[in-house]
Amino acid sequence: MSEPVRIGLLGRGTVGGAFAELVVERAGAVEAATGRRPEVAGVLTRSDGDFGAILEGSDLIVELMGGTDPARDHVLAALRARKPVVTANKQLLAQHGDELFAAAREVGVQLRFEAAVAGAIPIVRTIQESFGTTEIAKVFGIVNGTTNFILSEMAATGAAYEDVLARAQELGYAEADPTDDVTGADAAAKMAILARLAFHTPVTLDEVAYEGIETIQPDDLAYAKELGLSLKLLGAAERREGGISVRVFPCFLYSGHPLSPVEGPFNAVMVEAPAITEVTMSGPGAGGVQTASAVLGDVVSILAGEAPVHETREELPVVADVTSSFYLHLEVADRPGVLAQIAKLLGDNEISVKSVVQRGIGDDARLVMVIHECLESRFKAAIEEIGELDVLRSPPRAIRVIEEEFV
Amino acid sequence: MSEPVRIGLLGRGTVGGAFAELVVERAGAVEAATGRRPEVAGVLTRSDGDFGAILEGSDLIVELMGGTDPARDHVLAALRARKPVVTANKQLLAQHGDELFAAAREVGVQLRFEAAVAGAIPIVRTIQESFGTTEIAKVFGIVNGTTNFILSEMAATGAAYEDVLARAQELGYAEADPTDDVTGADAAAKMAILARLAFHTPVTLDEVAYEGIETIQPDDLAYAKELGLSLKLLGAAERREGGISVRVFPCFLYSGHPLSPVEGPFNAVMVEAPAITEVTMSGPGAGGVQTASAVLGDVVSILAGEAPVHETREELPVVADVTSSFYLHLEVADRPGVLAQIAKLLGDNEISVKSVVQRGIGDDARLVMVIHECLESRFKAAIEEIGELDVLRSPPRAIRVIEEEFV
Repeated sequence: MSEPVRIGLLGRGTVGGAFAELVVERAGAVEAATGRRPEVAGVLTRSDGDFGAILEGSDLIVELMGGTDPARDHVLAALRARKPVVTANKQLLAQHGDELFAAAREVGVQLRFEAAVAGAIPIVRTIQESFGTTEIAKVFGIVNGTTNFILSEMAATGAAYEDVLARAQELGYAEADPTDDVTGADAAAKMAILARLAFHTPVTLDEVAYEGIETIQPDDLAYAKELGLSLKLLGAAERREGGISVRVFPCFLYSGHPLSPVEGPFNAVMVEAPAITEVTMSGPGAGGVQTASAVLGDVVSILAGEAPVHETREELPVVADVTSSFYLHLEVADRPGVLAQIAKLLGDNEISVKSVVQRGIGDDARLVMVIHECLESRFKAAIEEIGELDVLRSPPRAIRVIEEEFV
Repeated sequence: MSEPVRIGLLGRGTVGGAFAELVVERAGAVEAATGRRPEVAGVLTRSDGDFGAILEGSDLIVELMGGTDPARDHVLAALRARKPVVTANKQLLAQHGDELFAAAREVGVQLRFEAAVAGAIPIVRTIQESFGTTEIAKVFGIVNGTTNFILSEMAATGAAYEDVLARAQELGYAEADPTDDVTGADAAAKMAILARLAFHTPVTLDEVAYEGIETIQPDDLAYAKELGLSLKLLGAAERREGGISVRVFPCFLYSGHPLSPVEGPFNAVMVEAPAITEVTMSGPGAGGVQTASAVLGDVVSILAGEAPVHETREELPVVADVTSSFYLHLEVADRPGVLAQIAKLLGDNEISVKSVVQRGIGDDARLVMVIHECLESRFKAAIEEIGELDVLRSPPRAIRVIEEEFV
């Protein structure tokens, strides 16, 4: 029998615990696949264990602590000691990716992180390996299961955001403090990682603009349903105007869009490129066992053979102002000339309207417009002007619309 | 500058031609990723080129000839000469997999075949690498784009099979001789490969039972729509009753099923396992550029490093008789007692009915039943008995139903 592979496990929360169990359960399969049997040789928790001793007694480090401190120091120390590292830590990679990848390349050991984005969905491997030399045009993802669950529930039940959030917390789909998820910050970290891999360019977390779902109203979803649209919190990394755009925002998807059928706490990522048309992968985005399974997959890959460490090849600027289509929801006084007034403000900003629906609500009227693709800065300027009109009954509400033709 | 990687290209049809172009177009990206620049050093066509000389002058062989003769001899010769091989040839692997994998293992060179199944969708890599040590329960796939296009069109337009097939041929989605696609034979070869990889067991093409879509009627699709079902040609590889079942058959999917939204000439594959719940991947299943792109991905993987060659770990029996749910369509004389007569025959075979809809059509009636999961051999026996009843106006039509609960 060959020497076992000694794994130093940093962190023993939900994922860490599931990983430790999975190593025992799948040890025979790993040995059959790679010739080496894995075992957890040491565990570091917040209260227990000595990192130096664990590193010394391990062939490979699995970092599942979360956060960047002390995870960053530990991962750097492991790499410098020439121990391959597997991590599920999106913040660590989104904030300190350059430093960590450089450290791994310097000593020629692997740094794998499939579980950092979209749980059990092998999107990191797919982008890095299968599409590693493909000229990727865009990566669109639903990469936060909490917000997708909330939006799916709001759409299905008509309930308000706050009520659905409370239900998500009861079911364990949302944390007690849901800020990271509902503001889009969690998705932004994941998109920073995917954009880096897809475009081979350094992307840092602070370059990713994000908006959350906290202001979504039930009637936005009701209108969406009428129009055959679904509302998703989308992570979008795209080649745009000589650079890339990396953002997270709620948006309406047309029903033929590959991400449109993704419901509940699931994740999905679509990769588009001329050479592949588009490939979409969906599955559970979180969960202890699912994430642990992705971590074990990385361990197996490290045992199976060498692989190049991520290296940037380009320095693409992150473009802030891009074009988008919008849905615009206005509540206005039901008086003659109001629509003309609003249409003029839009026209003055070179914004053209694709469709309008106007409905009376008592003395007021509701205007729902779909706006043709336009530069976002122009749209924002127009919205500000519209917001100042005295006929407005409530602040304008705008949501992006992704309109694409498939098949 | 490092030595180029000389690729010997066998075959220059649609995929071969697209691959040769892609190598030129992406040579710089491949060099950036792997340190080595690829070039096509020799091309063998049916009428031109000398295999021995091409092999001698190549570092790596890409086999895109199709068929098993002479592809099998050439691939074996290449492996024995210690040249890694990339192939897109599903028949070659489905029929001669054991021999080819053994030859590759013997000399320790890679044999990669991402493009053999589901074109640009990286399902081979995902099953082999990401889920290589996962206890996979089932792999369900829409792995033939021609039949999915035909079924989608029939569902959308209500047109008859023959008319839609003619249209598919015009559009280039079906071959002049569509037999391989419409009978399920093409899908069977792909499922043989996926079953082998998923279950680490030798599966040969002749063990895969398949049925095609030639007998599907427009009214089957009309009923499906009413019931919220979609009709797909499904490849199903599952652990069943102490062995595995590997089959291809048309079936109804409930609308929540991950494969249900897959329309047109697209492919999709779903992998289910306790550790991952389920992961689904979809994208174009064919097309010269898309397939060539998958081939180039394999070339890059070979240049990037070593990887183990597929090896079977188990000898699982292929179970022929498994349980399924069915939709049963009967046209009968509209006389008292007919339903009772049919219900009795089903009951005698221990088959229970989940739902029945009866509708008058002139002097006759149409019975549409959904049958609870039962052993297929029992169902077939019952259908044969029912088929002999003199109240039957046309042969019974049965289609499997896949009912699964997700999220």
